[in-house]
Amino acid sequence: MDPYMIHTNGDGNLSPVLEVHVNINGKSSGLGKIKGRKARWSVKPSDMSDKTFNPIRAIVDSMKVKPNPNKAMISLSIGDPTVFGNLPTDPEVTQAMKDSLDSGKYNGYAPSIGYLSSREEVASYFHCPEAPLEAKDVILTSGCSQAIELCLAVLANPGQNILIPRPGFSLYKTLAESMGIEVKLYNLLPEKSWEIDLKQLESLIDEKTACVIVNNPSNPCGSVFSKSHLQKILAVASRQCVPILADEIYGDMVFSDCKYEPLATLSTNVPILSCGGLAKRWLVPGWRLGWILIHDRRDIFGNEIRDGLVKLSQRILGPCTIVQGALKSILRRTPQEFYHNTLSFLKSNADLCYGALAAIPGLQPVRPSGAMYLMVGIEMEHFPEFENDVEFTERLVAEQSVHCLPATCFEYPNFFRVVITVPEVMMLEACSRIQEFCEQHYHCTEGSQEECDK
Amino acid sequence: MDPYMIHTNGDGNLSPVLEVHVNINGKSSGLGKIKGRKARWSVKPSDMSDKTFNPIRAIVDSMKVKPNPNKAMISLSIGDPTVFGNLPTDPEVTQAMKDSLDSGKYNGYAPSIGYLSSREEVASYFHCPEAPLEAKDVILTSGCSQAIELCLAVLANPGQNILIPRPGFSLYKTLAESMGIEVKLYNLLPEKSWEIDLKQLESLIDEKTACVIVNNPSNPCGSVFSKSHLQKILAVASRQCVPILADEIYGDMVFSDCKYEPLATLSTNVPILSCGGLAKRWLVPGWRLGWILIHDRRDIFGNEIRDGLVKLSQRILGPCTIVQGALKSILRRTPQEFYHNTLSFLKSNADLCYGALAAIPGLQPVRPSGAMYLMVGIEMEHFPEFENDVEFTERLVAEQSVHCLPATCFEYPNFFRVVITVPEVMMLEACSRIQEFCEQHYHCTEGSQEECDK
Repeated sequence: MDPYMIHTNGDGNLSPVLEVHVNINGKSSGLGKIKGRKARWSVKPSDMSDKTFNPIRAIVDSMKVKPNPNKAMISLSIGDPTVFGNLPTDPEVTQAMKDSLDSGKYNGYAPSIGYLSSREEVASYFHCPEAPLEAKDVILTSGCSQAIELCLAVLANPGQNILIPRPGFSLYKTLAESMGIEVKLYNLLPEKSWEIDLKQLESLIDEKTACVIVNNPSNPCGSVFSKSHLQKILAVASRQCVPILADEIYGDMVFSDCKYEPLATLSTNVPILSCGGLAKRWLVPGWRLGWILIHDRRDIFGNEIRDGLVKLSQRILGPCTIVQGALKSILRRTPQEFYHNTLSFLKSNADLCYGALAAIPGLQPVRPSGAMYLMVGIEMEHFPEFENDVEFTERLVAEQSVHCLPATCFEYPNFFRVVITVPEVMMLEACSRIQEFCEQHYHCTEGSQEECDK
Repeated sequence: MDPYMIHTNGDGNLSPVLEVHVNINGKSSGLGKIKGRKARWSVKPSDMSDKTFNPIRAIVDSMKVKPNPNKAMISLSIGDPTVFGNLPTDPEVTQAMKDSLDSGKYNGYAPSIGYLSSREEVASYFHCPEAPLEAKDVILTSGCSQAIELCLAVLANPGQNILIPRPGFSLYKTLAESMGIEVKLYNLLPEKSWEIDLKQLESLIDEKTACVIVNNPSNPCGSVFSKSHLQKILAVASRQCVPILADEIYGDMVFSDCKYEPLATLSTNVPILSCGGLAKRWLVPGWRLGWILIHDRRDIFGNEIRDGLVKLSQRILGPCTIVQGALKSILRRTPQEFYHNTLSFLKSNADLCYGALAAIPGLQPVRPSGAMYLMVGIEMEHFPEFENDVEFTERLVAEQSVHCLPATCFEYPNFFRVVITVPEVMMLEACSRIQEFCEQHYHCTEGSQEECDK
């Protein structure tokens, strides 16, 4: 009897498992001994999936409050500039996609690191004498998230560590911990416009440090580092011989009174992987087109790291080819006016929000210089009803239907983050509701009666 | 002196590292001891990138022969139906993308597992009474490659093993080994139209087996399993309590004399993750839109595996939203005629190629029933000049400018794979060149003189 023959019962279905008899022939060359056969089903998720933890999801999903039914919800929580419809991408960008589709040339597989022609366009867009780039220095990825993932995956082994900013974008920790890489948090100082505490940063570096992540302009802070501060960061990396992963997805998104300096333009020796993409500046985060720019003028990464990135890119084969095919036109044809208009809108909303919140007793907003965010300190001693920023923002939803992310999501308790991409009227309304909320819950502390009398 | 002050030399550059003095203050709370400071740069790629090995790239890249300059190159090596322009996608598919762009609704972030509405469309497209699906059972991914990656990542820990077909698509091994998962190869039998050697398959299963990958229709074989063979595979999985990862990217791509059975429709108890996407059937592999269909009617995966997949999807956030937005129209509006035309073309080319190669002494093609490939056995004893399939296909390029992948790429020496998506004239020309090549190199073996006299 062939044990692999199928026995069906009367209605043509497979007979239940228990009725399938395996006829083990001692001489059978194929089957041999049955080793460690499982007696019953037990399918468990891997350690990696268990370790993949997204703090924003965890915190937001556990906030089970309902908004005030008498007030329309205003969400200032999601870093997606497209949700309100007031910040569409430029028509040239959409047209570039249609041209890419119509050409019929971009439906097949691209090389896993992206089309050569598309990588040439990115290289020439970011090339400058201080930080020259060629196509071989560019890897296209499925969004900036995959760019960061590939960089961490090539630079660090499980058991090594990386240094990430506090407050900082939660994905760094999510990715690193899922890969068994330890994270160490270096401090950003709100009183210094969120500059890095360089002494503390340097004290964290040890022989297992695989890289330092520098996020400039910053999510969640909206801060932009000065040239001299970036030079000091580079000096630390240079002294300690630690490469830098520069998350520059908000590159060039700085307000008019401020200048953005790509980190690589300021160094001749520190090897830098700069991650970016179309998401923020071109306002199309869903398109998942990111890139890694390899800056390695002293050949410290060498071919090994480059080859490692190429090999890792072959696991899932890069971004959508239609977007790759549109890259040339997107980078060349998007009018300066488009970038300018986005930035003046953001600057105006930032000023408006900062001004309104700075006038509210108990809140300490930090003025942003770029990106799409603003961080607000909560003087918790004046809000004794709330245990922390999570509870503060929860109650803000329940009473005023305004949703801000508690900065605990960014490892920075007692702050909350405001997204400033919402339409102006909504921004104003949100600020006025936050004011009402704070006025209702503000308590004077002992010894500060004078302040309360004001 | 502030050790973090930047010292520039005359020309404004940073002073060399050795001249930067760190003033360590014993009382400094931040800096503390300098631990394990690296004396010089040493950046090495991670073990994971070292372990990420793509055999096709390795073998093809090391084939350094040049084609015959007197014959135009014909590449039958790449599984990309778009390269020759003879198999464009349907105009409805392109129009769906333009509508998605024009709507302006699909530029922002989607949920990391894909828009609910898009997942509903995929669920309803694949839903059937034997294998019901809802949106919650669908995860959208960046191509079928990421679908497979997520499935392996959620099911297996380093040190566990998975069973993969030999010959088989090389990505399974590439992904598994990069994650430290062992692969065990089960045999497909060419003399049985590439059915699985079920005894040998079952003998490989042990307590560390996380899943069996079943690829149907098959790359590189072009084979399609019968209903009864699929039931036997399921019986093994059921007996051994091992889940199945069904790579069904070529689902429904079977020739008219044959029927495709989605694996999940034949089982009520084996938990199955079925991976697919737009790549092959809709002829747009570059668009990177894949999916995982979760079939788990006995709740064996349970919420844990589902949650694990969701968490892993948050690492890089899913496929391009424009393609997601186009999914509804792509799945609903692509005319039956389009699928039909693709398949009759493939069937006709398969017949043509099989017929031509079967007539060549020394070659043993195996007739395909679906997908886009055909495997050809080389009777190596008749080609003593060549050491193996790699050398055979190398010389075929050098002499006849015809490029086929040696099946060593698929762990199956002494075969080569032909891609049958090329235009008919090219297919004919390629077969006639292969015939010339074989005639020139064919040697009779002892005792087979009769055959040679024919």
